[in-house]
Amino acid sequence: MSGNTIGKMFKVTTFGSSHGEALGAVIDGCPAGIKLSVEDIQKELDKRRPGKSKITTLRDEKDQVQILSGIFQGKTDGTPITAVVYNREFDSSTYEALKNTPRPGHGDYTWKTKYSNYDYRGGGRGSGRVTIGHVIGGAIAKKLLEILEIKVVSHVTQVGHVIADKVDVNQIEFNIEDNPIRCADPQAAREMEELILEVKSKGDSIGGVVETLVLNPPVGLGEPVFDKLDADLAKVMMAIGSVKGVEIGAGFEVAHLTGHQTNDEYQYTMEGEIRTITNQSGGILGGISNGMPIVVRIAVKPTPSISHVQKTVNINSMEDVEIEIRGRHDPCICPRVTAVAEASAAMVVADHLLRSGFIHPSKM
Amino acid sequence: MSGNTIGKMFKVTTFGSSHGEALGAVIDGCPAGIKLSVEDIQKELDKRRPGKSKITTLRDEKDQVQILSGIFQGKTDGTPITAVVYNREFDSSTYEALKNTPRPGHGDYTWKTKYSNYDYRGGGRGSGRVTIGHVIGGAIAKKLLEILEIKVVSHVTQVGHVIADKVDVNQIEFNIEDNPIRCADPQAAREMEELILEVKSKGDSIGGVVETLVLNPPVGLGEPVFDKLDADLAKVMMAIGSVKGVEIGAGFEVAHLTGHQTNDEYQYTMEGEIRTITNQSGGILGGISNGMPIVVRIAVKPTPSISHVQKTVNINSMEDVEIEIRGRHDPCICPRVTAVAEASAAMVVADHLLRSGFIHPSKM
Amino acid sequence: MSGNTIGKMFKVTTFGSSHGEALGAVIDGCPAGIKLSVEDIQKELDKRRPGKSKITTLRDEKDQVQILSGIFQGKTDGTPITAVVYNREFDSSTYEALKNTPRPGHGDYTWKTKYSNYDYRGGGRGSGRVTIGHVIGGAIAKKLLEILEIKVVSHVTQVGHVIADKVDVNQIEFNIEDNPIRCADPQAAREMEELILEVKSKGDSIGGVVETLVLNPPVGLGEPVFDKLDADLAKVMMAIGSVKGVEIGAGFEVAHLTGHQTNDEYQYTMEGEIRTITNQSGGILGGISNGMPIVVRIAVKPTPSISHVQKTVNINSMEDVEIEIRGRHDPCICPRVTAVAEASAAMVVADHLLRSGFIHPSKM
Amino acid sequence: MSGNTIGKMFKVTTFGSSHGEALGAVIDGCPAGIKLSVEDIQKELDKRRPGKSKITTLRDEKDQVQILSGIFQGKTDGTPITAVVYNREFDSSTYEALKNTPRPGHGDYTWKTKYSNYDYRGGGRGSGRVTIGHVIGGAIAKKLLEILEIKVVSHVTQVGHVIADKVDVNQIEFNIEDNPIRCADPQAAREMEELILEVKSKGDSIGGVVETLVLNPPVGLGEPVFDKLDADLAKVMMAIGSVKGVEIGAGFEVAHLTGHQTNDEYQYTMEGEIRTITNQSGGILGGISNGMPIVVRIAVKPTPSISHVQKTVNINSMEDVEIEIRGRHDPCICPRVTAVAEASAAMVVADHLLRSGFIHPSKM
Repeated sequence: MSGNTIGKMFKVTTFGSSHGEALGAVIDGCPAGIKLSVEDIQKELDKRRPGKSKITTLRDEKDQVQILSGIFQGKTDGTPITAVVYNREFDSSTYEALKNTPRPGHGDYTWKTKYSNYDYRGGGRGSGRVTIGHVIGGAIAKKLLEILEIKVVSHVTQVGHVIADKVDVNQIEFNIEDNPIRCADPQAAREMEELILEVKSKGDSIGGVVETLVLNPPVGLGEPVFDKLDADLAKVMMAIGSVKGVEIGAGFEVAHLTGHQTNDEYQYTMEGEIRTITNQSGGILGGISNGMPIVVRIAVKPTPSISHVQKTVNINSMEDVEIEIRGRHDPCICPRVTAVAEASAAMVVADHLLRSGFIHPSKM
Repeated sequence: MSGNTIGKMFKVTTFGSSHGEALGAVIDGCPAGIKLSVEDIQKELDKRRPGKSKITTLRDEKDQVQILSGIFQGKTDGTPITAVVYNREFDSSTYEALKNTPRPGHGDYTWKTKYSNYDYRGGGRGSGRVTIGHVIGGAIAKKLLEILEIKVVSHVTQVGHVIADKVDVNQIEFNIEDNPIRCADPQAAREMEELILEVKSKGDSIGGVVETLVLNPPVGLGEPVFDKLDADLAKVMMAIGSVKGVEIGAGFEVAHLTGHQTNDEYQYTMEGEIRTITNQSGGILGGISNGMPIVVRIAVKPTPSISHVQKTVNINSMEDVEIEIRGRHDPCICPRVTAVAEASAAMVVADHLLRSGFIHPSKM
Repeated sequence: MSGNTIGKMFKVTTFGSSHGEALGAVIDGCPAGIKLSVEDIQKELDKRRPGKSKITTLRDEKDQVQILSGIFQGKTDGTPITAVVYNREFDSSTYEALKNTPRPGHGDYTWKTKYSNYDYRGGGRGSGRVTIGHVIGGAIAKKLLEILEIKVVSHVTQVGHVIADKVDVNQIEFNIEDNPIRCADPQAAREMEELILEVKSKGDSIGGVVETLVLNPPVGLGEPVFDKLDADLAKVMMAIGSVKGVEIGAGFEVAHLTGHQTNDEYQYTMEGEIRTITNQSGGILGGISNGMPIVVRIAVKPTPSISHVQKTVNINSMEDVEIEIRGRHDPCICPRVTAVAEASAAMVVADHLLRSGFIHPSKM
Repeated sequence: MSGNTIGKMFKVTTFGSSHGEALGAVIDGCPAGIKLSVEDIQKELDKRRPGKSKITTLRDEKDQVQILSGIFQGKTDGTPITAVVYNREFDSSTYEALKNTPRPGHGDYTWKTKYSNYDYRGGGRGSGRVTIGHVIGGAIAKKLLEILEIKVVSHVTQVGHVIADKVDVNQIEFNIEDNPIRCADPQAAREMEELILEVKSKGDSIGGVVETLVLNPPVGLGEPVFDKLDADLAKVMMAIGSVKGVEIGAGFEVAHLTGHQTNDEYQYTMEGEIRTITNQSGGILGGISNGMPIVVRIAVKPTPSISHVQKTVNINSMEDVEIEIRGRHDPCICPRVTAVAEASAAMVVADHLLRSGFIHPSKM
């Protein structure tokens, strides 16, 4: 059944696969009158592009986006916005060998079983390239967030055993531009880079944690009891290919704590605004934003494409076999996931800004 | 905007609040011909009922369910099933004092800000009683799962610092009936109970972890790229009132691991079925079930209702104040959350059984 | 698959059948802060009640509505509103004879084939009683329309060959209270009544036309290109049990006309508002309301329950048979359909008021 | 709010406008394994193309479709199918004059008011060109219908006062290929052509009726009580730009008839199938298909672009003005609407084939 749309008012439908003609997204429900250029989308796509440093894959994917609809005289016109990235000619021959032997940790086996006519080349629609659609949607979502001066920023807080120190929220965006890891703690960033290179040299890969902050959210985003803001964030984050866990605020730490330690007490600010003293709740209470920064963390698994010999099955000959995956792959996907996490959070927040009535649904 | 429905084919819409007339759910999309009795629902509701042991609240809530529609001659008839639990007369006077002073850790402040005419009594629709709707939906979902011999079981794996040992999957359901904690490791269960009583004596509460297993799932549940099975599970779990984190399979542990450690290798079983040797992926790959047990863990925060004096604001007089919450509250909500987690997972799995074509949408 | 919900922001889910425990509706997405009483709903339900005159069935259905959720201190609280009407004890024995012999013109055959465990008593969920859910939804929708001083009124314009004269729009609501036909042309009303009694005396029934007007709509309702206002009105109207045709504005008359005759020219009113000189478009252009009265007409088929001997099949013995339907049935359903048509239009307009941003989605 | 998607399981989202970069559609929910080529879509698009005879506009729109995603080795792969038609360079200058003066009968005024940044060129997204998206969706839907040997055929039954004779259902498809009117009655076709040319010579346009037949449908399509098959057909048909009325089966004729005349009696066929003797219900009873041909008629208004001088307003100067629309326009849009009606019906039927479980949702 259909499952390629996210959002109820800001609806993003993505399409395309790794080795097909094109990838892209249709955004239905974006109000008219918002300035939007190709550059607004391109700059976000560039963040997720590999080939920018020695820790990412050497594949050079120059993804140029093209807008097909929804813009009139430089602004959205209230009709669906479509943006696409055409795939260049890929060499698919290396994938031919893997046609009948699902790669451990990838979706090959489940997709093939479910859809039967599965485009196995490069993971097909299970590929990381599919997040091009997410990033297009997120880039447009961010234009809506800008109206209310809401910002979304994602950064790497852990790679393997290296855990970054907490960094002042306003410093993060600045710090992560400085290093290829997109980690806001410079010392940890260096150690993460070393770890990644070490793991890479062994033909292996490593996992990590990406934290996303939504800064300056209004009070009132979220539609209980099922479409809570944290529930929708959990969904969109878990839908990112490599994610195995999602935390809001204190996250799994709450299992160890008492109510006294986790309750965020209230107080009035000098400006007469209600704020909590701590932010264990990560900006969401009862499924609705409380005005504090929204904090979401995701666990990112190591890239399953490793060069070790691995056990698998041949679904054609129906026997146990071994495979060795060749090719250039990211030893740690976290830095690139930051772009996708940002986009994912932005789409959910944009949707809820419309759903909760902070932005007019038809025009600005 | 509306947000009280979960599911796309097996659609559960819940309603009602803590101190209103009734709570309940409408289930639209359940095929005709499935045996369903009041007892099928009542027995699940009884699992989430408090007052069953010294570690839960002493409030005695005898929630008797009534079916209003959708059943003909003891079987579903393909039309919407409605089931309700009438609230008994509650004493709401204790809540009057809290009307203008949002309780830390509760949704009072955000709900009041969003909806303005907020029913503050007992948390209103933000109350734990609202999960009666979840459990009704889950009870009916389980009838669908039974057709394919799929089972859902939730158990407590952590309370504060006490972490249960791994227990054989087939032993869990049996073991948890034995103790009020619903923990499958008897030794840990005893320690958890002690910890909870200790915390309670201090007027505090404690968090924990609840694990949910979906046993015997087919290969092919999940609708990428947004309605992945893990994404929908993450959403429904995070929508449970007290949950701050969701993990699938190895969860946050993947951040520490390498690809070699997390990839689940494939092999043929004696029966000619494809299975993975390990289950780090928690039964879901590429957003689609792979036939292995589905493993979901949630972080449950300590009940925010504690008897400590807490700082808050008076939104009427607009000044900082202190409150003390009285009344009988669960010092640890985890045992009762197991019923809600089971129901939540069952609703998502039932929805995907229909969406993926494992069950006919109209009749059995 | 589920299909018992109408609306995307003002979502009405109905449930219940003719001879089950209860009928009702859940309304999710109604903003908080709107005054709503049992009487607001009851007075609309009374409009569709039979037994009020000699031209309707003699069955006396005293449908008392009860509100189960969503109201706090006399106003909506932003959570789902549930209202139910319990069915009284019915004598179902007369229907037993029809169990295997689908009645011509009814849904018996199609429902039985689709759902298998079909509640055939009184038409089950295919019964006219199911419109109790529509009317509950419509009653609450009207409270939203009141905020913008939008009115919905339905009247009978044709019964058999008797066609009512056009009546001034502001006179209609007043005139229809005067006669059991709910026809605004008093002379035609008398002729219609005579015709209905004549048809009734022959054990037959007669069709007609019901027109619905939405007065004082804003400019801008409707979400092209599929969720156009006229498209959504057509859907909700055609979903009423006995409806076989829907017209907007000039309707099928346009087939005979030229562009010159159907184009509504624009002019400024004295108050500086843009209005069309004629209203052939029925208040909707390009799928969006233009501020003129919205005009929808529906063709209502004669009640299929007639006392003639009719040919049918016995699906059990698999042979051609004849049946004779006994019982008291409306010889013309049009007067009662007005209440359902009003409710249906109101639900669609309320949904679009929210969708188009004319009413805040959370609170008033 | 978003409104550019039709269908719940076979979901078609269309995008693009008359003078933008491209028009197209994304189809999410089409099962994998169905043969689909560019030609399958192109041949349907060619049906709606103007410039094929002297009765249509002389504009030559060679719309070449391109598939961007969802096809692998000549078959659908279960992922979203995207197809686009790039717009060629249009001369938009003629529309500049109409920027502030809404054309009577068009959506200019309502779209401009709603969205503010309205692309007025050629009607923007209110243009007839937008039905390219419908036809793409319909072409793919037809591939699903083929699996069950279901056929959809639309033909013109009325133009102005010229009404076609009934033609045998199996003859229709053959007959309409014969004349530019796509009318199955050759004599009426000639008279219609004459009438259209006459109207054209006066700078005017003329309305008509298009009938759509769904042949060989199964019993059981439709999801009451709101997503009834006739309700969904009414919606999709009314959403076509020029449609002002929809009839199922006997349609508005039922207003004149008695129950005895409209009830379709049942009988067994020689093959042991249950069929109705007449088909007044148009193949749908209780909102569910009964296996008889489904009959839908739509009232198509005359093209609003006529060369008469017309009254309108200048929304910039805020005064009453007159306009004269130049350019080449269809004097009767009915023949081209047949392609759109076919596509629209096909999309709804495909959606319900999936929803009712006649086709597996993931793979063939």
